[in-house]
Amino acid sequence: MRVLGVDPGLTRCGLGVVDGLPGRRLRYVAVGVARSEPELDADQRLLAIERTIEEWLEEHAPDTVAVERVFAQHNVSTVMGTAQVAGIAMVAAARRRIPVAMHTPSEVKAAVTGNGRAGKAQVQAMVARLLQLDELPHPWDAADALALAVCHLWRPAGALGAPQRAPGSMTPAQRAWAAAEQAARRR
Amino acid sequence: MRVLGVDPGLTRCGLGVVDGLPGRRLRYVAVGVARSEPELDADQRLLAIERTIEEWLEEHAPDTVAVERVFAQHNVSTVMGTAQVAGIAMVAAARRRIPVAMHTPSEVKAAVTGNGRAGKAQVQAMVARLLQLDELPHPWDAADALALAVCHLWRPAGALGAPQRAPGSMTPAQRAWAAAEQAARRR
Repeated sequence: MRVLGVDPGLTRCGLGVVDGLPGRRLRYVAVGVARSEPELDADQRLLAIERTIEEWLEEHAPDTVAVERVFAQHNVSTVMGTAQVAGIAMVAAARRRIPVAMHTPSEVKAAVTGNGRAGKAQVQAMVARLLQLDELPHPWDAADALALAVCHLWRPAGALGAPQRAPGSMTPAQRAWAAAEQAARRR
Repeated sequence: MRVLGVDPGLTRCGLGVVDGLPGRRLRYVAVGVARSEPELDADQRLLAIERTIEEWLEEHAPDTVAVERVFAQHNVSTVMGTAQVAGIAMVAAARRRIPVAMHTPSEVKAAVTGNGRAGKAQVQAMVARLLQLDELPHPWDAADALALAVCHLWRPAGALGAPQRAPGSMTPAQRAWAAAEQAARRR
């Protein structure tokens, strides 16, 4: 199972590819950032990001694309561009019939650190440890994209569509994950 | 000069095509709505909307695509989907090297009614009058898409990139338009 994580953004869009199966060690495949020049018009910026995402879909042929779920409460000055990049990643996957999963920032942090409110440095350090990287992934967007892929590979069995499980049978990270997912669904 | 107006939305995306030249009568070409089923996953909904937009681009070959500029302050429950559809329309045009223009709701209302705070019924009525339609365009999204195209065709000469003009040389509608555009740029 290969997952492409996409941390959407108009200036920097994080991309990370991880292989994994339930109960098996994660395998790092690739990490990078799609960029667009802030001087360009918005449509040209979106086109540049789309092209890089499509190159990654072609090169890495993921089984699933995991995209960070963007909420309107986020930074207002950048949220519209972020939402547009998320939409473009989703439709680029859908055109190729690749399933798309959405995970909230809290779910992702909880999945890799056990704490849905963890800071970016903590996420970055855990991603490097979990994927046995020699260096911390940079920039934050790249680390977050890898964390998204790990989050998707590690989601509780059957989480998509049936998130509720008996709390006692979950690890702390799984409980935090399920709570974040349920909070996201209530919005 | 042919303009495709796009009033973005995930459930209903208004599409309207108008021909025009400065100082010449407007000519209505087509109006419609791209829809997606709310039961589908978001990526499939975006894909359905994208396909309809691409059909319109192929069929009508516009010289410009005018997209409503979406602000994060709008209805929070739908704004993310709206932003994503706007991004998909922008990139679909950019892929075909068709220029994209963005207009705020206030600019559009001011262009067709002279009042940047006009209601939807007023916009709808003016669109029907300006385009000599026998019926009011329905739903609102379709009327707004035609209004976007009219707004773009009627923008003050040189408005894109150089919106300031001596106020005395403008019509009331042009003054309202310029004020709305400047307000939008200040955000």
